[in-house]
Amino acid sequence: MKISELSQRSGVPLPTIKFYLREGLLFPGAATGRNQADYSDEHLRRLRLIRALIDVGGLPVAGARQVLSALDDPEVHGHALLGAAHEAIARPARADRSSPQWQQARAEAADVVFGRGWQVCDDATALDQLADAIAALRGLGQDDMLTMMDTYAAVTEQLANEEVALVLARGEPAAMVEGVVTGTVLGEAVLTSLRRLAQEHVSAQQTADQVSAGDGR
Amino acid sequence: MKISELSQRSGVPLPTIKFYLREGLLFPGAATGRNQADYSDEHLRRLRLIRALIDVGGLPVAGARQVLSALDDPEVHGHALLGAAHEAIARPARADRSSPQWQQARAEAADVVFGRGWQVCDDATALDQLADAIAALRGLGQDDMLTMMDTYAAVTEQLANEEVALVLARGEPAAMVEGVVTGTVLGEAVLTSLRRLAQEHVSAQQTADQVSAGDGR
Repeated sequence: MKISELSQRSGVPLPTIKFYLREGLLFPGAATGRNQADYSDEHLRRLRLIRALIDVGGLPVAGARQVLSALDDPEVHGHALLGAAHEAIARPARADRSSPQWQQARAEAADVVFGRGWQVCDDATALDQLADAIAALRGLGQDDMLTMMDTYAAVTEQLANEEVALVLARGEPAAMVEGVVTGTVLGEAVLTSLRRLAQEHVSAQQTADQVSAGDGR
Repeated sequence: MKISELSQRSGVPLPTIKFYLREGLLFPGAATGRNQADYSDEHLRRLRLIRALIDVGGLPVAGARQVLSALDDPEVHGHALLGAAHEAIARPARADRSSPQWQQARAEAADVVFGRGWQVCDDATALDQLADAIAALRGLGQDDMLTMMDTYAAVTEQLANEEVALVLARGEPAAMVEGVVTGTVLGEAVLTSLRRLAQEHVSAQQTADQVSAGDGR
C-alpha cells in the first residue's frame, strides 16, 4: 500500500509516519520509484505497536525506540527483553538519591525483595524507584502506608506468575517478545486504571458505611 | 526560618522554591521585612509533599497544583479528594477515542467494572484509560492478555479495601486527606516498582525451568 493508505488505515497522520521513519521507529517501505515506497501489513502492525507504547503506555519517543530496538535485536530475547522494556518505561531519576534517608530506603527496598527470595539484579532500576517511593512516604510521615508493602509484594508475585506463564505459553518467539513488551507496558495501564476504579468504588462504600454508622443505623 | 534554611533543610534549590511560591504551590512565608519572610515547619512539610508528587509520582507541575488545591479546599474531602487525585494523575488522553473499536473497548471496560458491582462514575477518567489499554491490546492481536482482566480486578479490589481502610483509620481529617493523595500517587509507584521486580524474578525462574526441561533434566 502507499504511505497515504497506511496513514488512513492506521489513523496516524502522514507527517507523524514520516517522523517515525526518520527516527527509525518504523522500517522503510520497499522502494517502488524515486519518491514512492510500498508498505505492508507489517508496517501497519508496527505502527499500531508504536502508538500503543506512546499513547497508552505513555512512553516518550526515545523510550519507544529503546523498546523497539530491543525487540528487533535477535540477540535480545525473553528475560533480557523484559529488562529492556522495564528500563524504557522507567522514569528518569528525579529524586535526590544521595541522602542517608534515601540510602536507608534503598536498603529497605532490597530487604523486601531479597527477603522474599526474589532473584533480581541488585542494581535494577525498579529497586531504586521503590526506594524513591519509600523515602518519600517516610519523609512525609506516612509510614503507616508501608504496612501495605508485604501485601503488594505478595499480590505482584501472584500476578507475575500468571503474566509470565501466559507469555511463555505462546511458544512462538516473536509472539513471546511482543507479549513481554505489551504485557509490561499495557498491562501496567490496565492494572493502574483498575486500581483507581476499585479505590473509587471502595471509598464510596466505606465512606457511606461510616456515615450510616454515625447515624446510629 | 529564612528561605535559605528552608532550601538547605529540604534539599530543594532556592530558585525552585521561588518558582513554587510564584506558582502558588507553596504558600507565602510571614513577611518580616521588605524582602524577607519567615518559613515554618509547615512549609518544609509542604515542600516535601510537592517534591513527592512531582519527583516520585511523576506529576507535572499543573497536576501537582491541581492535587494541592483540592487538598487545601475545605469543601473537598474524603471521597471527592480521591477523585481530584485520580484526575491529576491521569495522563491526558492521546489515544484516538472516536473509532468504533474504541467504543467497543469502552463498553467492555464498563462491563468489567459494573459486572463486579463497582459503584463508579460512568464518566470516570480511569474507565476511559482502561478502554485505551483494551483497545490497544485488541488492535495488536494481544487478546490473550485480556484473560488476566478478572484477576487484575479481583486483586485491585482486595488492595483497595485495605488501602481505604488504612486511610479511614487515621480518623483525623487532615491526615486522611494527605493519606488519600500520597496513597494514590506514591502507592502506585510502590505497586508498579514491585510488579516489575516480581516479573523479573518470575521470568528468570520460569525461563530457567524451561531450559532445564529442554535439557531433559
